[in-house]
Amino acid sequence: MQDLVQRCDRYLAEHEAEHLQALGDLLRIPSVSALPQHQADVQRAAEWVAARLRAIGVPEVRLLETERNPIVFGHWPVDPSLPTALVYGHYDVQPPDPLELWETPPFEPTLRDGRLYARGASDDKGNLFAALCGIEALVRIIGHPPINLKFFFEGEEEIGSPSMAAAIRQYRELLACDVVISADGGMYGHDQPSLTLSSKGICACQVDLRTAATDMHSGQYGAVIANAVQTLVQLAATFHTPDGRVAVAGFYDKVRELSPEERAEIAAVPFDPDEFLANVGAKALWGEPGYTPLERAWARPTLDLNGFWGGFQGEGIKTVTPCEAHLKITCRLVPDQDPEEILDLIERHVQAHCPPWAEVRVTRFPGSARPFAIRRDHPALAAAREVLRELYGKEPLMTRVGGTIPVAELFQRELGADMLFFAWGMPDNRVHAPNESYRLEDFRTMARAYVRLLPRLATVMARA
Amino acid sequence: MQDLVQRCDRYLAEHEAEHLQALGDLLRIPSVSALPQHQADVQRAAEWVAARLRAIGVPEVRLLETERNPIVFGHWPVDPSLPTALVYGHYDVQPPDPLELWETPPFEPTLRDGRLYARGASDDKGNLFAALCGIEALVRIIGHPPINLKFFFEGEEEIGSPSMAAAIRQYRELLACDVVISADGGMYGHDQPSLTLSSKGICACQVDLRTAATDMHSGQYGAVIANAVQTLVQLAATFHTPDGRVAVAGFYDKVRELSPEERAEIAAVPFDPDEFLANVGAKALWGEPGYTPLERAWARPTLDLNGFWGGFQGEGIKTVTPCEAHLKITCRLVPDQDPEEILDLIERHVQAHCPPWAEVRVTRFPGSARPFAIRRDHPALAAAREVLRELYGKEPLMTRVGGTIPVAELFQRELGADMLFFAWGMPDNRVHAPNESYRLEDFRTMARAYVRLLPRLATVMARA
Repeated sequence: MQDLVQRCDRYLAEHEAEHLQALGDLLRIPSVSALPQHQADVQRAAEWVAARLRAIGVPEVRLLETERNPIVFGHWPVDPSLPTALVYGHYDVQPPDPLELWETPPFEPTLRDGRLYARGASDDKGNLFAALCGIEALVRIIGHPPINLKFFFEGEEEIGSPSMAAAIRQYRELLACDVVISADGGMYGHDQPSLTLSSKGICACQVDLRTAATDMHSGQYGAVIANAVQTLVQLAATFHTPDGRVAVAGFYDKVRELSPEERAEIAAVPFDPDEFLANVGAKALWGEPGYTPLERAWARPTLDLNGFWGGFQGEGIKTVTPCEAHLKITCRLVPDQDPEEILDLIERHVQAHCPPWAEVRVTRFPGSARPFAIRRDHPALAAAREVLRELYGKEPLMTRVGGTIPVAELFQRELGADMLFFAWGMPDNRVHAPNESYRLEDFRTMARAYVRLLPRLATVMARA
Repeated sequence: MQDLVQRCDRYLAEHEAEHLQALGDLLRIPSVSALPQHQADVQRAAEWVAARLRAIGVPEVRLLETERNPIVFGHWPVDPSLPTALVYGHYDVQPPDPLELWETPPFEPTLRDGRLYARGASDDKGNLFAALCGIEALVRIIGHPPINLKFFFEGEEEIGSPSMAAAIRQYRELLACDVVISADGGMYGHDQPSLTLSSKGICACQVDLRTAATDMHSGQYGAVIANAVQTLVQLAATFHTPDGRVAVAGFYDKVRELSPEERAEIAAVPFDPDEFLANVGAKALWGEPGYTPLERAWARPTLDLNGFWGGFQGEGIKTVTPCEAHLKITCRLVPDQDPEEILDLIERHVQAHCPPWAEVRVTRFPGSARPFAIRRDHPALAAAREVLRELYGKEPLMTRVGGTIPVAELFQRELGADMLFFAWGMPDNRVHAPNESYRLEDFRTMARAYVRLLPRLATVMARA
C-alpha cells in the first residue's frame, strides 16, 4: 500500500499541469444556478463533469434528470464484496457579482501567488476536481478504483438544492452505497486539518397575529382594544428565558447531550472571542447558559426570531393601534430533534400563550431538514483521521457545522449512508465573495488524501 | 334676557335662507390644507371668513401671519369690565378623496333630507359659521356682543396645526382672554347633548436597538451573538404587565385619579360593547384592569407600541440573525402627566432593561402635547350645561376625548384660558370621509345655543 500511495503521488505530481488546465476549463463555464441566463452553462458544466468521469474510466456515466438541474451520476462497480462509496459534490457556482471587486475576471481562472482565482475555484469545482484527480491516480496505477465507487454531482447546491429531496428519493436504488464522501466542505485552517462531525437541522414557520379587522386610532381605541404589536411582542417574549434558553415546553427533550469526550473535543478547538466579536461588530457573546460558545454554535439548538413586523415603520409618528403583527421563526436543530415535532411544540406554545383577545395562526414553511451527524464510530471517520494525521503530522480537530447541510441528512435518511466530509475549503478562500480562490497546496493535499483514503476504506469498512 | 333670546331666535329663523347661502359660498372654496395646489383656496377661505366678521360688525379684523396658513383674527371689545371670550375654529378642510364615493361633488354644497352635504359642512366650516350666526343675531338685536369677543380661526387644523404653537406664543398678548370657546367639536348624539371635559396629551419616541454591526447567518451566529429582534421583543414586553397596565416605573405617579363623581358621570354615558367591537372587528375588549372601557378610553393613560420592525419581512424563509430592531412608541397622557417627564421615564426604563449585549438609543419626536381638561368648576362649563338643558330638555352627558387636541392645551398654557368645547359635530356626520354632512337642525341649534351662552357668560364669569 505504501508503494501504491507513492506511485499515485508521483502520478499526481507529473500530471499537475494537465490537471490544472482541465480544472481551468471547468472554471471557465459560468454555471451560475441562481441566474436563468446561465441555464445552458449549468447544463454544459454537467456534461463537462460527465465527460471527465468517462475519461477517468468510469464505465457507467449519465445525467439523472431532476425537476431542475441534472445530477451527474457515475458508477464503477469493482467487486461486490468491497464497500461502495458515493462521492458527492456540486458543479454549480454562486453568482459572481459584484464584478467590479474582482481583481481578475471570475470566469477567467488565474494563478497568482500559489492560488487559483475564479468563481468556484474552491466551492465546489476545485474540491470536486481534486477528488477526481485522486481517484484518477488510483485508477491509473491499479487499473480500477480500490472500492466500488458511485458519483453524485448536483447542480443546485447554491440555490438550496430544491429538487434533491425528491431526486434522492426517486433514485435511491441507483444511489445505494455504504458511505457518502463529500468533496464539498472545509478544513479548520491551512495547517490545521479537521473533520466535520455534524450539521444542524432546520425548521421554519411564520406567526400571524390579529386583534381587530382594521388598524385603529390610538386615542380612540388604544386603551380599549388590544394592540397586535404589543400582544405579539408579549407572546414572542415567551419563546426564551431572559438568559437565553428556549422556553418552549419540550424543546430540549430529544436533544442528545454532549458527552464529556465530545466536550473535550470541542474545547480543543481554538476559539478567539475577541476576533469572533470583531468579525460581526458585536460587543458581547450571548446564548444558552452552561455551554461554551463553540458548544452552542455546533451542538445546541436555537429558536431564532428572523423577523418581526407590525404597525407603522415610517419617519416620525403615527398614532396607530395596529391590528396585526407578524413573526418569522426558524429553529436550528441538533440530534435527535425532529423538525415537524419541534413545529408542533411551537404551534402548541403559540396557541397556549395567545391571549383571548387575539387570534393567531402558525404557518409552516417547507424546507425542513433533520440534523445530521456521522456515527461517531464510523470506520470512514477513523480512516479519514488516520489520513489527515499522516498528511499533516498532527491530530485533526473534530469540528461541527452550525448551519444546515440538508443533503447530508437526505442521504442518511434515504440511503442509510452517513456522509464523511472530506474537502479542503479554507476560511480564507472567499467562497461566495469576490476573488474566490483555492490554494494549489490544498488542491494537491486533497488529491493525495483521496489516494490514501479510498484503499483504507476497502480494508476498514464492511460491505453493508 | 328671555326677550333677547326670543328676538335672536326670530332673527335666525328669518335669516336662515340667507345664512345657508353664505355658508354655501364658504363651502364652495376647496380650502384643503394638505394639498399644495389648494394654497390659494386656503387663502381665499381665510379672506372670506375675515370679510364675514367685518360684515357682522367686528371692528378689528385681520389675518395673522404664521409659518404656514394665516389665522383669521377678530376683536370686538365692548366693556373692559366684562369677560372676554375667544371663539376658536378652523377654515381648512380635509382632502375630499376618494371622489367617486361622493353622491354629490364635495365642493358643490347640496341640501338633501334636511342635511347639507359638502366637504367641511360639519368639520369645521358648518360649525364655525353656526357660531358666527348666533353672534350675528346677538349683535343685530343688541347692537354689539354681550361680552368682549375675540376670534381665532386657523387654517392648519387638518394637517395637525404645525405652526399654531409658535403662533399662539407669538400673539399671546393679542389673544389674551378669559375663556376659549371652540366651535370645533361634537355632541354625543342627535338627541343627546354632551360636554367635553378633557382630551389626552401625547408624547412620542423611537427605540433603536443594535446587537452587532451586520446581520448574521443564524447557523453560524444564532447561538452565540444576540438577536436584535429577540432582544427588543424581550425589552418591549417589559413595558406592560400581562394584564395591560403600563409597567414603566413612575408612569402613573402623576395621574389624577377619577373622583367617584367623575366615574358616575362616565358610567352615565351609554356604551354598547358589542357595537364597539363590531366597529373595528375585534373579538374582545382589552385594557388596564380596574376601569371601565370608557374610563380607560377617556381618563387613563396608555403606552402604545405603534410599530415594530426588524429582520426579514419577505416571503418564505431567511435564516438571518438580525443585528437591529426598531420600535415606535406614543403615549396618551392624562392630567397631570407631563410629556417630557414621561419620555424621561421611558428612556430610563429602556436603559435599565437593555441587556449588556445590546446598545439602545431612544429618540424623542417633536409634537408632544400636554393633556387638557377644563376646570371642573369653570363657570362657562356650568353656563353651557344650562344652555343645553334648556335647548334639549335633558341633562347633557359629560364626555371626554381619548385623542389629543393640542390647541386646547396651548391656549391653556399660553393664555391661561380654558377651552369650552361648544359645537355640534355628530357621530354620523362622516367627517374626514366621503359624503360629509351637517344636519340643518344641528346648525339651527348651535346658532341658538351661542345666542344663549354668550349673555350668560357676561353674568357668570368674572373678568380675569
